[in-house]
Amino acid sequence: ALLEARGFTADDFALSHPGGALGRKLLLRVSDIMHTGDEIPRVNNQASLREALVEITRKNLGLTVICNDDMLIQGIFTDGDLRRVFDQGVDISNAKIADLMTKGGIRVHPDILAVETLNLMQSRHITAVLVAEGDRLVGVVHMHDMLRA
Amino acid sequence: ALLEARGFTADDFALSHPGGALGRKLLLRVSDIMHTGDEIPRVNNQASLREALVEITRKNLGLTVICNDDMLIQGIFTDGDLRRVFDQGVDISNAKIADLMTKGGIRVHPDILAVETLNLMQSRHITAVLVAEGDRLVGVVHMHDMLRA
Ligand SMILES: Nc1ccn([C@@H]2O[C@H](COP(=O)(O)O[C@@]3(C(=O)O)C[C@@H](O)[C@@H](O)[C@@H]([C@H](O)CO)O3)[C@@H](O)[C@H]2O)c(=O)n1
Ligand SMILES: Nc1ccn([C@@H]2O[C@H](COP(=O)(O)O[C@@]3(C(=O)O)C[C@@H](O)[C@@H](O)[C@@H]([C@H](O)CO)O3)[C@@H](O)[C@H]2O)c(=O)n1
Repeated sequence: ALLEARGFTADDFALSHPGGALGRKLLLRVSDIMHTGDEIPRVNNQASLREALVEITRKNLGLTVICNDDMLIQGIFTDGDLRRVFDQGVDISNAKIADLMTKGGIRVHPDILAVETLNLMQSRHITAVLVAEGDRLVGVVHMHDMLRA
Repeated sequence: ALLEARGFTADDFALSHPGGALGRKLLLRVSDIMHTGDEIPRVNNQASLREALVEITRKNLGLTVICNDDMLIQGIFTDGDLRRVFDQGVDISNAKIADLMTKGGIRVHPDILAVETLNLMQSRHITAVLVAEGDRLVGVVHMHDMLRA
């Protein structure tokens, strides 16, 4: 109320708050902020669940893409998927990732704006999105990447 | 560049974009947007890992709090923690949640602003925060709750 009396709106506050990077990165294109190359968590479709989990941990985005050597996307597997697999009582120690992955995966084109991608994450209740040209994987972006300074 | 020529800044865009709730909720207090009561994922410290995972799935926030009947927080367990437990080769089928949880848990006071909480999530690389008065759990808030319309 005090700030409002001084003509300082909620929007000004959110955008200018120290440490709050909100808004600053949102007009960039996804291609400017996405993880590329070795930072992309990925395994091929012959990998075991165990190998996929090691890759998720190594790259620290909470998911791995399953794709072939030409980077054509086959599926995605997240920390949430691991929990659901476990809930279902699947024999985890011998499982193959190809049998457990979510086929396809929610993706955006690299030219899309960060703000559009954040909206997509909210509407689909996900925290990371694949970046692809058609079925060819070019990057991965996490919610944190868009808000961080 | 076209939009800029019309005096429309990046910040205006991010805040006004259709579907983009960004900024709108950020001056609310965490107590206004947090999940409370039955929406809080929680188990007591006698629970098995399996019971904890069922609770995470049921409440759909990607974590469960471990607390006693007076709502005093003992720890937290996330989807990411499940993956790390699995990586370590723990015997998952007989595990107790108390042996695997992260003791304590990152928390904020219910009077804190949403924007502050979002900044904390970014700096700690987490997607959800416990809301507590001292050690007493009063709610849980996910990144999505702050950005969603
Ligand atoms: N309020 C919270 C939230 C989390 N934690 C703890 O902080 C650690 C990291 O939390 P996480 O939710 O497991 O975080 C993950 C992780 O695995 O570390 C999840 C993963 O899906 C992905 O989102 C990555 C990215 O690094 C995010 O940038 O982040 C965990 O030990 C968790 O118990 C906590 O103490 N208090
Ligand atoms: N780019 C993406 C991202 C995710 N998914 C799929 O969408 C589903 C949900 O993704 P998640 O990452 O598992 O989402 C979770 C989930 O368990 O559904 C994770 C959990 O830690 C928590 O963040 C909850 C909250 O509901 C978020 O509001 O959301 C999964 O089957 C995943 O394979 C996808 O196809 N493409």
